[in-house]
Amino acid sequence: MFLEVMTVAEALGALAPARRSPVVRVPPALGVVPAADVRSGELIPARARATVDGYAVRAADTYAASETLPAFLELAGAVVMGDEPDGEVGPGAAMAIPTGGLLPHGADAVVMVEHTTEPMPGHVEISRRLAPGDGVLTAGEEAGPGDVLVPAGRPLRAADLGLLAAAGITELDAHERPRVGIVSTGDEVVPATTAELGAGQVRDACAPALAGLVREAGGEPLARGIVPDDAEALERVLGEAVAEDDLVVVSAGSSAGARDLTAAVVERLGEIVCHGLALRPGKPTLLADCGGVPLVGLPGNPRSALVVFRLVGVPLVRTVAGVTAPPPVATARAELARDVPSAAGRLDVVQVELRDGVATPRFGSSALLGPMAGADGYVVVPEPDTGLPAGAPVEVVLY
Amino acid sequence: MFLEVMTVAEALGALAPARRSPVVRVPPALGVVPAADVRSGELIPARARATVDGYAVRAADTYAASETLPAFLELAGAVVMGDEPDGEVGPGAAMAIPTGGLLPHGADAVVMVEHTTEPMPGHVEISRRLAPGDGVLTAGEEAGPGDVLVPAGRPLRAADLGLLAAAGITELDAHERPRVGIVSTGDEVVPATTAELGAGQVRDACAPALAGLVREAGGEPLARGIVPDDAEALERVLGEAVAEDDLVVVSAGSSAGARDLTAAVVERLGEIVCHGLALRPGKPTLLADCGGVPLVGLPGNPRSALVVFRLVGVPLVRTVAGVTAPPPVATARAELARDVPSAAGRLDVVQVELRDGVATPRFGSSALLGPMAGADGYVVVPEPDTGLPAGAPVEVVLY
Repeated sequence: MFLEVMTVAEALGALAPARRSPVVRVPPALGVVPAADVRSGELIPARARATVDGYAVRAADTYAASETLPAFLELAGAVVMGDEPDGEVGPGAAMAIPTGGLLPHGADAVVMVEHTTEPMPGHVEISRRLAPGDGVLTAGEEAGPGDVLVPAGRPLRAADLGLLAAAGITELDAHERPRVGIVSTGDEVVPATTAELGAGQVRDACAPALAGLVREAGGEPLARGIVPDDAEALERVLGEAVAEDDLVVVSAGSSAGARDLTAAVVERLGEIVCHGLALRPGKPTLLADCGGVPLVGLPGNPRSALVVFRLVGVPLVRTVAGVTAPPPVATARAELARDVPSAAGRLDVVQVELRDGVATPRFGSSALLGPMAGADGYVVVPEPDTGLPAGAPVEVVLY
Repeated sequence: MFLEVMTVAEALGALAPARRSPVVRVPPALGVVPAADVRSGELIPARARATVDGYAVRAADTYAASETLPAFLELAGAVVMGDEPDGEVGPGAAMAIPTGGLLPHGADAVVMVEHTTEPMPGHVEISRRLAPGDGVLTAGEEAGPGDVLVPAGRPLRAADLGLLAAAGITELDAHERPRVGIVSTGDEVVPATTAELGAGQVRDACAPALAGLVREAGGEPLARGIVPDDAEALERVLGEAVAEDDLVVVSAGSSAGARDLTAAVVERLGEIVCHGLALRPGKPTLLADCGGVPLVGLPGNPRSALVVFRLVGVPLVRTVAGVTAPPPVATARAELARDVPSAAGRLDVVQVELRDGVATPRFGSSALLGPMAGADGYVVVPEPDTGLPAGAPVEVVLY
């Protein structure tokens, strides 16, 4: 069945889906993925402004100023916030100005009020020597016409929203959140809303958990329901999903028979590029390209499914969403509390609890979700290693 | 004006708001904050199940089994997925079973199909010695009645959603996303939708950027508009916000005059617990407790405002949301590319670009958002330090 087992990196390299979610015109919002660089249409700020509370002056007039010998300038009015300055600053003159006030004509620097006194009405003494540009934000210092404000492919962050607002950009071309169809399979699987389980039935834990990961990755999950272990029914549902969604995920059933069935159906819908990952848990993973739409067939055990989806599905969701600069992952350094066995050539993912810099593995059947829900994160044993010894320094990827 | 400058930690200690967002009954979803521990109402799984494809047996029957001398058992049918097993496994018998199938009565272990052969119809040979429980998920191994599935105060993660679904929990008591009122002030400030700026006008960059941070923190931003530098108007808007919202943020204006005005108004609405942070940028920060509702008065410069809100506002949003276990922060270790000056007793926040493990500071006026939008994260120079030398190892908090 596993003709050729691939590493996670090989599998992600082999499946390079053509699909990208549609580009739409949207207002800037957190996580929105620009489809192209967003450029400024104007000078920001449009005019030079004060960055401190103080006095607008000609820097040359303070050339010899010091604490002991301050420059003595004539007060020529005050700049009012949000208004055109009334008049200009000539040689030997100063104008009071608040932070953010427009720099009056003639002035080329602003001295902080802390370095001044008003010894008599209508005059100001300046005890610092200024250079042109001191205390001033020049026109276009933030951006000029054509400058890139936010790059394509990086989900918008808080500061980006501020910068776009400052530039008056209220719409941009962005990728829609990719629509991710989630198909659950299994004769024994019933919806989470089932109050009383029949003999042998289990509630669908995979679909809601996967929906959570899809959202985390920036996608829009679409639950396509539970399909019995029946080739015709599965082909109909997967066919619809492939036709309508940007990415399709199917929990392939936990038994070998269910997996064979899924593989046979997927083979008719697209090209299988990987059937077996060098990963534990998660070996029985199937990756296919269905006319550009990536399809991920996951192991039936919920925990295995989540491990695989985080490693393989999340990057695929981002690719389809047009993300080229994914957000950073939270990690912590720790020391392993005990030996973790592995096999060379296989990537092992082990959930850990993290306390005081010590990572304690939480083992248990991959049919159990508890070891993951209760964990703080996971460590990986890379493919070349045959295990990690107690005390080994590890990087914990945090949930 | 800054009677007593506090450190960020002191300020967060001094402002311990009583307010918590309302508790409502909601379906489980990513980021939902349980208001109480959520417990299982049943055994999960309800009955013992196979965790491998193979044969259900009595472990005692394999006591002497080995590759060279397999145990020879009689095949007593097959378990069908999702059904009650037909019959039971007696001594010397085995029943075929798929992963996830209900363990038949009599059996206490499941041998993997890989360790078996069917030498003749109706019989199976087992080449491994099994212990009771091998290949079996026991009843209640995931959880039993009363066991905590997810703890109060930790925003739900993907695995939690799976675990709750497995337990049939479709609703829980959770804190609403706290409603965060965002008030912008300044005679010069106009909405981001303003196409043509008048002389001295600037578009409101703070409110959209803060809205992004509020969402990141799990809150629901509510833009309460732009208020001119007028005490009466500000008191009316802030009064409404304090009465209706779970947390209030006000960009206090960039000039000393605007800050004084805000402080005077806030003093009438609640108790000011901090007026000045030992932080750069971000010194002119005001924190108040308005009848349990926290109010954060931010510096007028957008970048300073975002620095302060990330350090002070985000933890407050989480507190109000009932979060006791905040999600982890992504960080990276790096080496500083150049000296970063600071002053003892003050926390400095410096945006950096990160390339190949080297963090290059991006300086520039705190009136500029570009150095933050273009940065990969920030480093802090802690209060006791007078700066960090080039080459110092730093922890970069990633955006």
